[in-house]
Amino acid sequence: MSFELALRQAAQETDALLDRLLPLEASPARRIMEAVRYAALGPGKRLRPFLLVEAASLFDVPRQQSLRAGAALECIHCYSLVHDDLPAMDDDDLRRGRPTTHKAFDEATAILAGDALLTFAFEILSAAETHPDATIRVALVSGLAKAAGQAGMVGGQMLDIEAETQANSNLSDIVRIQSLKTGALFRFACEAGAVLGAGDPAPLRRYADSIGLAFQIADDILDVESTPEALGKATQKDKGMGKATFVDLLGLDGARQKARRLVDEAVAALAPYGPKADLLADAARFIVARRK
Amino acid sequence: MSFELALRQAAQETDALLDRLLPLEASPARRIMEAVRYAALGPGKRLRPFLLVEAASLFDVPRQQSLRAGAALECIHCYSLVHDDLPAMDDDDLRRGRPTTHKAFDEATAILAGDALLTFAFEILSAAETHPDATIRVALVSGLAKAAGQAGMVGGQMLDIEAETQANSNLSDIVRIQSLKTGALFRFACEAGAVLGAGDPAPLRRYADSIGLAFQIADDILDVESTPEALGKATQKDKGMGKATFVDLLGLDGARQKARRLVDEAVAALAPYGPKADLLADAARFIVARRK
Repeated sequence: MSFELALRQAAQETDALLDRLLPLEASPARRIMEAVRYAALGPGKRLRPFLLVEAASLFDVPRQQSLRAGAALECIHCYSLVHDDLPAMDDDDLRRGRPTTHKAFDEATAILAGDALLTFAFEILSAAETHPDATIRVALVSGLAKAAGQAGMVGGQMLDIEAETQANSNLSDIVRIQSLKTGALFRFACEAGAVLGAGDPAPLRRYADSIGLAFQIADDILDVESTPEALGKATQKDKGMGKATFVDLLGLDGARQKARRLVDEAVAALAPYGPKADLLADAARFIVARRK
Repeated sequence: MSFELALRQAAQETDALLDRLLPLEASPARRIMEAVRYAALGPGKRLRPFLLVEAASLFDVPRQQSLRAGAALECIHCYSLVHDDLPAMDDDDLRRGRPTTHKAFDEATAILAGDALLTFAFEILSAAETHPDATIRVALVSGLAKAAGQAGMVGGQMLDIEAETQANSNLSDIVRIQSLKTGALFRFACEAGAVLGAGDPAPLRRYADSIGLAFQIADDILDVESTPEALGKATQKDKGMGKATFVDLLGLDGARQKARRLVDEAVAALAPYGPKADLLADAARFIVARRK
């Protein structure tokens, strides 16, 4: 199957699952579900669930299990976007080509919808449908909590905010911030595949580290080269906030080169899995070639 | 042991555990841990951990296990206070006699600290130290996620916000809102004791429902009768926001009577456990007699 088709198929399956897991009737407060669904079911590439499903397929994990873990991960990703877009954080009005959740609803509802999605991720993982073995389920809970929390994504977000007020961030600073802010969830996506299949996560971890960083470099390049219309969100925000980006520190050509090198490293890390990992190799190439 | 002493001891043990679980070095972003610690380790009664520990003691659960589950529950409670106090929500400057987290730090940091605490609760529960049996740990994760999420606390918070704009809430409306907003965590506290001890949660659930409602009625009474100085937070806020309270709907005497009746029901629900449940019975009485 082509990578584009496989990505689209995983996205459709993830959306169908989230749609089923998050019905309007899931809360006595209809409004919270409207906001949760708006945030979780909007347009999105569903790259993280795709990575999780593909990593799991290396170990022949049943797809309905990896899709559930992927849906939980996407809940975390979507909650982080909702909270990051809030006026007190990045103050963004546009996300994925639509008004951000606090614009479509209001700030209080957006805060609560983010909290609900964050919480729901762990409800999904803890259910027996995710994996019959409780040891595996609890390992997923632990892994996702660590990836998303103060030592992972939230810690990276805090460092990123602090970097706005620190004029001279260097390359190792922003690599460290991004390995937490973006990298931690990519790492969980890949490792969760190995956890579900009781396989060795080490090669996948190396792959994830490379594509996580490549993803952020590509984001910085798009931020400079693309338009809000093409991207579906504001561009050149980092510049406005005085935040150092990979493009600032490496130049446009240097950033492109670094991203390409990371893709090569990611592909090399997949060698132990042979041709079974071809779609993951394509994903690494897509991450730097994407236009949005 | 007297109830007051037992409550204070559980609070001290909970604080010591949270202090150990949340060191400043737990994140590469020191600021997030400062805010997390400010929110989680401030003065507080630690009533929910106390209930959990006491419920667990009915089933002879080792205290170090129930204290960990209690610490996780307190993380959820504290995160909910941090987010509820935000300007976009209740906009409170004072909590437990100190500036609220967004006042002591800033809004972005408070949002992230809340997210970190919410996430960390599940990290605590998923660790083997909480219970050697993964089935029990995953049941705790599932129970806490349901209690805290859109069908529990967050759903109740959403309904509570919506009630501000609906002039004529009746008694069954506010009972329903409070059984979610406050009751769900009380219910989890008590049920988790039974889960840890593989016991029957049904009587504890009845006890929790009664004290949860009694707690909220007592809160409404304190909101009218106490002062910000004694309470450590703003009073008469509900009135200002046009929100119906138990005192509005039942009158002061009626509210007191209802709270007393609920305490009697809570104590009656504990009958199957005999004198082992004396401290839980005292807790029910304390909940309506407390001055803050």
